[in-house]
Amino acid sequence: MKENRVKAVLDNLEEMGLSQMLITDPLSIFYLTGRMIQPLERFYGLYLSRTGRHKIFINQLETVPEDLGVEKVRFFDTDPYLDLVAAAVDSKEPLGVDKNMAARFLLPLLHDKAAPDFVNASLALDRARAVKDPQEQVLMRRASQINDQALDALKAHIHAGVREIELAERLKQIYRELGADGVSFPPLVAFGANAASGHHWPDETALKSGDCVLLDVGCTYEGYCSDMTRTYFYESVTPRQRAVYDIVRRANEEAEAAVRPGVPLKELDDIARTIITQAGFGPNFTHRLGHFIGLEDHDFGDVSAAATEAAVPGNVFSVEPGIYLDGAFGVRIEDLVLVTEEGCEVLNRLPKELEVIG
Amino acid sequence: MKENRVKAVLDNLEEMGLSQMLITDPLSIFYLTGRMIQPLERFYGLYLSRTGRHKIFINQLETVPEDLGVEKVRFFDTDPYLDLVAAAVDSKEPLGVDKNMAARFLLPLLHDKAAPDFVNASLALDRARAVKDPQEQVLMRRASQINDQALDALKAHIHAGVREIELAERLKQIYRELGADGVSFPPLVAFGANAASGHHWPDETALKSGDCVLLDVGCTYEGYCSDMTRTYFYESVTPRQRAVYDIVRRANEEAEAAVRPGVPLKELDDIARTIITQAGFGPNFTHRLGHFIGLEDHDFGDVSAAATEAAVPGNVFSVEPGIYLDGAFGVRIEDLVLVTEEGCEVLNRLPKELEVIG
Repeated sequence: MKENRVKAVLDNLEEMGLSQMLITDPLSIFYLTGRMIQPLERFYGLYLSRTGRHKIFINQLETVPEDLGVEKVRFFDTDPYLDLVAAAVDSKEPLGVDKNMAARFLLPLLHDKAAPDFVNASLALDRARAVKDPQEQVLMRRASQINDQALDALKAHIHAGVREIELAERLKQIYRELGADGVSFPPLVAFGANAASGHHWPDETALKSGDCVLLDVGCTYEGYCSDMTRTYFYESVTPRQRAVYDIVRRANEEAEAAVRPGVPLKELDDIARTIITQAGFGPNFTHRLGHFIGLEDHDFGDVSAAATEAAVPGNVFSVEPGIYLDGAFGVRIEDLVLVTEEGCEVLNRLPKELEVIG
Repeated sequence: MKENRVKAVLDNLEEMGLSQMLITDPLSIFYLTGRMIQPLERFYGLYLSRTGRHKIFINQLETVPEDLGVEKVRFFDTDPYLDLVAAAVDSKEPLGVDKNMAARFLLPLLHDKAAPDFVNASLALDRARAVKDPQEQVLMRRASQINDQALDALKAHIHAGVREIELAERLKQIYRELGADGVSFPPLVAFGANAASGHHWPDETALKSGDCVLLDVGCTYEGYCSDMTRTYFYESVTPRQRAVYDIVRRANEEAEAAVRPGVPLKELDDIARTIITQAGFGPNFTHRLGHFIGLEDHDFGDVSAAATEAAVPGNVFSVEPGIYLDGAFGVRIEDLVLVTEEGCEVLNRLPKELEVIG
């Protein structure tokens, strides 16, 4: 167990008036134990209690290391494993559960009156996971480093006639060669007008002169996600494309320059949105500025006009303004930033100057 | 709405003593409406009632066709949408819910006393989905046809030095070219000793003379899954490999020959297992004979020693015996079968004679 992370979750629970929680999200359990188990359909849970009598419930079919640092309760498929869980729970105190805990596990505990009340307590995990500790920061940095290298390597494969789907497959191969675990989401590759659509998936579209090339890509490293967007132009760029690119770049850079502890996240969205709006493209920036990221590409937490929370050191989120011109082209520029004591560290180092390839 | 499917689910609910259900599994809603919506984090639900006052709850951000054939309740993220659900539910009758319904939706309905009791009623869906209607049978057949063609086409790419991961990527491209939606699971490609491990993922292993080539692959077509395994040998085959292959093939073919309405599913497992056990390889057949399949690669229902249910016309499941020899090689042969009125239709037509490639 990662004791500091467990303590952060218990502190958050206390603030919510809870003394115990049953965690069933495999990523949250990985966060607290450092060991990944994918239980598929099987029950898998970590019980945390302010008394310190934590227990982890793991099917006998899983192999687990000896040194998990928490009492293991093993069971077979045929065992009444939810009775074992109910026995561990303090039946006089409300029980926090994960937001995604499945009804097939929750309802039997409920019918069994394992606790007087059940409460969605995912926020206790979400809040802890939103602040990366030094060990996590190393992995986030490394994931983005690989992402930079991979996107840079991919540029050699951008040529007339290449299909979006080919670049997406090629990128996955490059990630493997560079030692990533895999992708944090399927690579988005969009040429020309495809880049103006928020819902475009790489298809057989072939690259032609004058197209923009929007690449929104990410890999994972030891479980931690990267996520970056660059937009290039192929063979030529029009004055209008250049103007739009410069606005998006300025929005990205000025928002990043404002990241520091204490800044309300909505202020970052506002900085980028104001630049884009004043340039006349407000309605074409159709999404929030960014999202938190960590063990999931979209961790809990967003950077939008509604985000009143202030940035704290250890937060990692994306800064990704964009302008989308229906039927013509789209530009998005995205980095991940890590909030530091003084300001922020931009995790992506790939240049953002406008680049015409080919 | 697919009225016959809705009726089957309502009949199943009645047998379980339930008059209403809230369905939140997007695949089950697709099964009943014919329209796929992936709500991601958002609430999406179909309420079925024996009174016929069905309702579908869909976020305003989703585009939906006019002609869903069921009353639509639209809401924005900021609306109290679970109140709308509670208002539709008969608060005097227990409410069936999906086994995977998330706690963040279930707990508010519970605290709101939307119903006097909440019951995991997924079986009502599982049982309906286990019997494919004629329209579904057409799609299952087509998915397996494409799978046959794709695996046959993939054989041309099997040559000395090819890496497992390359074949896996190539297959995905072939699927696209043949008009499949995508894969029903990531292709399993295992050479030589890798084929003896149940948990091997395609990696950089290069093919060499004398290796077995185990290919466990599937695509989807209009949402329906295929799943097939063939094991080839590269350049040469030893007498021991040949003997093992023949045993697995016999186990596969004799089990398939016994499929007919009324046969207990465990009898099929027993037929295959007896052949393999009598040949001395019982401990090397380390898994059940098969699983049901449809909108999911692993639908509810299995073909194992514990499966006492009898096959009924419209069931589709896999028949996939295997023998795995640690550190040496593995052989698995898998087809999908559709139970018919008289016996069964084997959906895969790719030959099963031992084949030495190269």
